[in-house]
Amino acid sequence: MTVMKIAGAQLGAIQRADSRESVVKRMIALLDEAASKGADMVVYPELALTTFFPRWYMEDQAEVDFWFETEMPNAATQPLFDRARQLNIAITFGYAEKTPDGHYYNTSIVTDRQANIVGKYRKIHLPGHSEYDTERAFQHLEKRYFEPGDMGFNVWRNEGVIMGMAICNDRRWPETFRCLGLQGVELVTIGYNTPSVNAQMSAEGLEKRLFHSELSLQAGAYQNSTYVAGIAKAGVEDGHPLMGGSIIVDPDGFILARAVTEEDELIIAECDFAKCDFGKKTIFDFERHRRIEHYGRITSQTGVIVEV
Amino acid sequence: MTVMKIAGAQLGAIQRADSRESVVKRMIALLDEAASKGADMVVYPELALTTFFPRWYMEDQAEVDFWFETEMPNAATQPLFDRARQLNIAITFGYAEKTPDGHYYNTSIVTDRQANIVGKYRKIHLPGHSEYDTERAFQHLEKRYFEPGDMGFNVWRNEGVIMGMAICNDRRWPETFRCLGLQGVELVTIGYNTPSVNAQMSAEGLEKRLFHSELSLQAGAYQNSTYVAGIAKAGVEDGHPLMGGSIIVDPDGFILARAVTEEDELIIAECDFAKCDFGKKTIFDFERHRRIEHYGRITSQTGVIVEV
Repeated sequence: MTVMKIAGAQLGAIQRADSRESVVKRMIALLDEAASKGADMVVYPELALTTFFPRWYMEDQAEVDFWFETEMPNAATQPLFDRARQLNIAITFGYAEKTPDGHYYNTSIVTDRQANIVGKYRKIHLPGHSEYDTERAFQHLEKRYFEPGDMGFNVWRNEGVIMGMAICNDRRWPETFRCLGLQGVELVTIGYNTPSVNAQMSAEGLEKRLFHSELSLQAGAYQNSTYVAGIAKAGVEDGHPLMGGSIIVDPDGFILARAVTEEDELIIAECDFAKCDFGKKTIFDFERHRRIEHYGRITSQTGVIVEV
Repeated sequence: MTVMKIAGAQLGAIQRADSRESVVKRMIALLDEAASKGADMVVYPELALTTFFPRWYMEDQAEVDFWFETEMPNAATQPLFDRARQLNIAITFGYAEKTPDGHYYNTSIVTDRQANIVGKYRKIHLPGHSEYDTERAFQHLEKRYFEPGDMGFNVWRNEGVIMGMAICNDRRWPETFRCLGLQGVELVTIGYNTPSVNAQMSAEGLEKRLFHSELSLQAGAYQNSTYVAGIAKAGVEDGHPLMGGSIIVDPDGFILARAVTEEDELIIAECDFAKCDFGKKTIFDFERHRRIEHYGRITSQTGVIVEV
């Protein structure tokens, strides 16, 4: 069976003024560290190339477009792809994607060890709002700048392992993991940018927010018997703190590795994908135990309907 | 807004030789304790009236039928209903149900404060197997003795609160909580009988099994912004240990109360159902954030389909 060393490359703060080239240098430094530790794959965060720009309210589309990539790889990211190929390490990272026909997505890609892009995912569960919200402590305009992903939840067999991707807020939705689990997923990689403060409840506190992130990643792993890597962009970006807490979780829901800083930091875990089998063949043998005839509301109904 | 004191009445071991009447006495003692602490509702475990009989392989249907109730309340349970009415406390408990037309279910009911049965649930996710399994350390024959529930996942407005029920293994399936969450559930009560040992992996250990139970209950609570009470039958039944670990969880996924023994034990938590609102209106506002157009596999596909 396949064993891989999966590395999570948490990124510290990226300021609004920081260039993509400067970020790619940091990503390559983490890649080199991962190589020195024998990693087979490196997982970077959501929107890895820039600051978390959805916190900024912009009306000028040219200003918005500055944050988007129109091709991948491109001039700024080619050195990352080149180094990954040279080191024979698969990578996955997130970026803002503008398509040739003018659509905007919060996207992640995954490569094989030869730096060929073998999978793409576009974020489905966009949090936040689309118009300026005076009631929030700060803005979270993902619904303004992105369209919901149009590609669904997919898996790819990459380097012998069935992999799927999700992005940030997707991890809080069990539907994300289940759609991947129903395709036999063995590794789910999830990058995130999560503010350390709840814009709608500042008293919530960092500890609770880290707990919610871990709870969601651990439950998704256990209930689908899959490895999960949840990797943060962290640190204070132009005065706005993002939480860290990057973790790699095993198919039992246990945390194998955890970032301890809010800076650029590599975590690594050896993942023996044979360990996905026990859960998939026993308590979570979907074929024997799921009862789809009673799940209708999950796909027929978007919001809450109170009938009592 | 409604505030209720919810009590969990964990039951210790019930031996095969123990009568229903002896168990009902214990249930009434816990009810009295709950009343003295101001409880508004008491949650008892799955199959509360008898030992966990699916561990015994039986071929004689008359022997099987002994464990089933053909009406509720009945002579053995009437004293429990009477005392609950007298104390003005709503109750919910599980039992094995045989219907007049010969169907067999793992069932739970919930009453209002006047001991009227206002809701019934029949367990949908039956674990285990239907034939004698020589490879297991012990048997878990729920698929032999019960049919999957035929009533779906429903909620009831009881004493002002939107309540739903699930039973034991249902708690590991996020579909359970989501079907209830989509109906606005504010309290999910779940009784369980969970062996302390994994019959298919004895090395797993109690600690991991308690973690999996808590993880599932906490994730279900958080991701649907609902209170959850998960209440165990615990202790050693005729040599077979059942784990305890009964908990009451708040809509943030935090544990408010936890049983510390494997015996008859009452836990209690004050539940302010207004606290369900924040999550339901923000991060888990299903209407704004769910994307059912990408969830199709969840209801169209029972088992895993590997296409890569």
